[in-house]
Amino acid sequence: MQSEAAVIRRRDLFSLIGAIAGSAAMYHAMTSLGFASESNYKGPVRLEGDPKGASVLILGAGLAGMSAALELRKAGYKVQILEFNNRAGGRNWTLRGGDTFVELGGYKQTCEFDHGLYINPGPWRIPYHHRALLDYCRRLGVALEPFIQLNHNAYLHASRAFGGTPQKIRAIKADFQGQVSELLAKVTQQGKLDEAVSKEDQEILLQALRSWGALDSDYRYNANLVSAEFRGYAREPGGGLSSAPLPSDPVTLSDLLRSRVWRYLQSFARYNFQTTMFQPVGGMDMIGKAFAKEVGDLIRYNAKVTQIQQNDRGVTVKYVDTTSPSTVLHAKADWCICTIPLSILSQIPIDVGSRMEAAIDAVSYAGAVKIGLQFKRRFWEEDEAIYGGITYTDLPIRQIAYPNEGFNRAGRGVLLGAYLFEGANAYEFTAMTPAERIASAVEFGSMIHSQYKQEFENGVAVAWHRVPFTLGCSGEWTDEGRVKHYKNLCQIDGRIVLAGEHASDLPAWQEGAILSSLDAIARLHERVVKT
Amino acid sequence: MQSEAAVIRRRDLFSLIGAIAGSAAMYHAMTSLGFASESNYKGPVRLEGDPKGASVLILGAGLAGMSAALELRKAGYKVQILEFNNRAGGRNWTLRGGDTFVELGGYKQTCEFDHGLYINPGPWRIPYHHRALLDYCRRLGVALEPFIQLNHNAYLHASRAFGGTPQKIRAIKADFQGQVSELLAKVTQQGKLDEAVSKEDQEILLQALRSWGALDSDYRYNANLVSAEFRGYAREPGGGLSSAPLPSDPVTLSDLLRSRVWRYLQSFARYNFQTTMFQPVGGMDMIGKAFAKEVGDLIRYNAKVTQIQQNDRGVTVKYVDTTSPSTVLHAKADWCICTIPLSILSQIPIDVGSRMEAAIDAVSYAGAVKIGLQFKRRFWEEDEAIYGGITYTDLPIRQIAYPNEGFNRAGRGVLLGAYLFEGANAYEFTAMTPAERIASAVEFGSMIHSQYKQEFENGVAVAWHRVPFTLGCSGEWTDEGRVKHYKNLCQIDGRIVLAGEHASDLPAWQEGAILSSLDAIARLHERVVKT
Repeated sequence: MQSEAAVIRRRDLFSLIGAIAGSAAMYHAMTSLGFASESNYKGPVRLEGDPKGASVLILGAGLAGMSAALELRKAGYKVQILEFNNRAGGRNWTLRGGDTFVELGGYKQTCEFDHGLYINPGPWRIPYHHRALLDYCRRLGVALEPFIQLNHNAYLHASRAFGGTPQKIRAIKADFQGQVSELLAKVTQQGKLDEAVSKEDQEILLQALRSWGALDSDYRYNANLVSAEFRGYAREPGGGLSSAPLPSDPVTLSDLLRSRVWRYLQSFARYNFQTTMFQPVGGMDMIGKAFAKEVGDLIRYNAKVTQIQQNDRGVTVKYVDTTSPSTVLHAKADWCICTIPLSILSQIPIDVGSRMEAAIDAVSYAGAVKIGLQFKRRFWEEDEAIYGGITYTDLPIRQIAYPNEGFNRAGRGVLLGAYLFEGANAYEFTAMTPAERIASAVEFGSMIHSQYKQEFENGVAVAWHRVPFTLGCSGEWTDEGRVKHYKNLCQIDGRIVLAGEHASDLPAWQEGAILSSLDAIARLHERVVKT
Repeated sequence: MQSEAAVIRRRDLFSLIGAIAGSAAMYHAMTSLGFASESNYKGPVRLEGDPKGASVLILGAGLAGMSAALELRKAGYKVQILEFNNRAGGRNWTLRGGDTFVELGGYKQTCEFDHGLYINPGPWRIPYHHRALLDYCRRLGVALEPFIQLNHNAYLHASRAFGGTPQKIRAIKADFQGQVSELLAKVTQQGKLDEAVSKEDQEILLQALRSWGALDSDYRYNANLVSAEFRGYAREPGGGLSSAPLPSDPVTLSDLLRSRVWRYLQSFARYNFQTTMFQPVGGMDMIGKAFAKEVGDLIRYNAKVTQIQQNDRGVTVKYVDTTSPSTVLHAKADWCICTIPLSILSQIPIDVGSRMEAAIDAVSYAGAVKIGLQFKRRFWEEDEAIYGGITYTDLPIRQIAYPNEGFNRAGRGVLLGAYLFEGANAYEFTAMTPAERIASAVEFGSMIHSQYKQEFENGVAVAWHRVPFTLGCSGEWTDEGRVKHYKNLCQIDGRIVLAGEHASDLPAWQEGAILSSLDAIARLHERVVKT
């Protein structure tokens, strides 16, 4: 009890500072006491007050739409959802053997993966700080397992460096830290930091650089058993009378700098990619399915919205059933939460003011391509001891991501043979047929893993600009666009409010979709109970 | 086929270089072509040739003993194992609710954990490069899951720094990299690296430091949204009209250096602790149990060895059944593989030459203490978003390790409330009663997690110097001792050969035990088929 009281008192203190000195001062106080990172999620949304039988029409059964539906029904609203696809989840999507899908242009693919193997064409990882999504996983019983972002034994690959040979991430990481530490130790010892750092701190700095940079007793980063304990051995320590360990040779600073592979190192340290990340056990769509178990009875599938009208009494949405599109159907409600991606929504007539209309038109959608490849065996584990994680390359495939499940098992395996996010490569791959994309991924991948061509069996390729229900991967805000349009996009316009990752500061993340939705329904509810 | 041929040719090239220029040249060639880290495990041991009915007596049913038994029986030997405990596995050991154990001094503990919760008092993690152990896991069907070593959201804690407030690992890591990068960028721009680094490379170095160190456009590490993307935010990005992100304040270089928490950073990058690490699903003893499923019929449990005799015809081992210790029993075989820890073996009369005898006496055993604590709820996840991984502290408990399984679930949880390896703290905790150890772990832990006292339920504490079957955690070689005694320890002495982690270059690791055993049986077998 005592300790809880202490926490509460500290929180009271923050509120007091906030009230007196403003929020910036409060956050500085929190930060300096180690309470950084206030989440925008404060636990399950509380919609207090009676909605008096108000009805809400939700457009889109992705995570934004379904979380809104779940909470609004619980708060007493009459809820219905229109969904374009014949399944719930939207971009929360997993492809398994037997699944088919048709992309824009008419190419139909059937996934031929073995039972139990899959790829997540859309979101595939969940950061530990995505508190809203994690809370829904917990409430809905979605089991999680770690997603490995940094695998020290995967590769960094630059086609024109190191003779084209992929380098172990652990070696590049250790060598960069080691070389930087050696340089800084040298200038410290030469007295060149005397203006910037006190003598006492310089002594500690040298100790720290030696520890962290794996330097030897002369503050040098060299081939020895000190650096080998970080970058790996030429020959590993063994047992009995078998061989003793041998050190490996660091790459030179100049080779390392010119290779440019250092630019991948920051990927592993970014807040959005830090340990511990998660993926749902069995595929990302376990989340969408868990939501659908709660609100599936509210969803009308195969519903393509063609017009969104409103007046001061309510909202009318025209739609067609995509299985018999000649008949125009109507759905009506008091309020509308529209989670349709802006790439689609900008093509649908909607009764909103000019500000929201301009905002809807202002956001372009990122291109992204993911290619799943099935192989006869998990050669990356069997031959190369690569368990999960990601290899980065400057080849057009950009990444090879190894599965984070079924570790160390015999049998077939599926890896992500390409993940292109934005940039020219994504457009090039989008322009190809699915078969060409897969063949290209196998060709490029074989420059990193020589086993590719012998072991390859089949693949699937999703190019998001050709996915009919989004026409792109996610909303791509410019800084200017956000300043000019973001608030206008999120404001309630009459009886319509938008939600989705595009209406968040976390674009392309499921957490953004959910937080945007919770924020939208909280504001909508406030308006409803006030009227 | 083509690609496999390419790999084989490359290997042939290495052999050729090895034959001509010696092994060091070969490993340098391998390293420079990216083929570093030759493992000492080349796949399942092949014991070719007929042992002609030879018999082997194995002492100890740990991983060394059981892997030897499995392979030797397969090769045609008659095998028996004597084991002191009433279970197989040795230090491969998991404590669950209902388990009891008695330590030296007579203290009996009964573990009171809830169903499904456990701690591994001995080994608890498996590096990706422990190829032999991983191959046995695969062959024996032991399922694996990631062990999180580095959790960016766990803490580094120094009792006399930062007002005693634990710091997020991500913040310390980002701040150290950022401050180091800023310093090195500054001296680069001042021309102070002109002697050491070419102008062209200096330009790239600045880019690299900016990317990797999260520096701003002036090469400064400051409170802004660049550094926040690594160290975390004061207020996180949200959705809808809820708040936009706010940066957090880095700690100063001087505070960081003087806190000494930088010394923990290297733990996460060491070869033995790099991603992807594993733990068996359900507890480390799943491995011991899987071995016992194969060779359990060969094991005599409760067998305490009292003397090991040999002559030129065979080996005779005297032992007693610990459940009726008055009768001396005998086991005989042509050969003996002794995996008894040296801490115990040095107290047993054994017929070996003076060199092996000296080696047996030369190795001291490390002290280690692990304390498992059960709490009413997984507050570290619920309140602090800490999923797995390790908090490091300068308090006597040294570490708090969070469970790497059952993530995000409701209900009780068990964490490792202390892990002391070597050093004075391990001795202090060993000297306490189990109840005192647990109380102390709760007291110290509550300085890091204020929820401790309110949520604590029960605990177990294993002090390895008091564990009757090892009297210590693992063999602790000095560099001098290894030079003088290691080969003598591992050589076959007449009809006796030793195996175990103590007879390896991987002390304290299960891989060392297995590689040592495989090396010993290969040499023994060679001798047997030659005679």
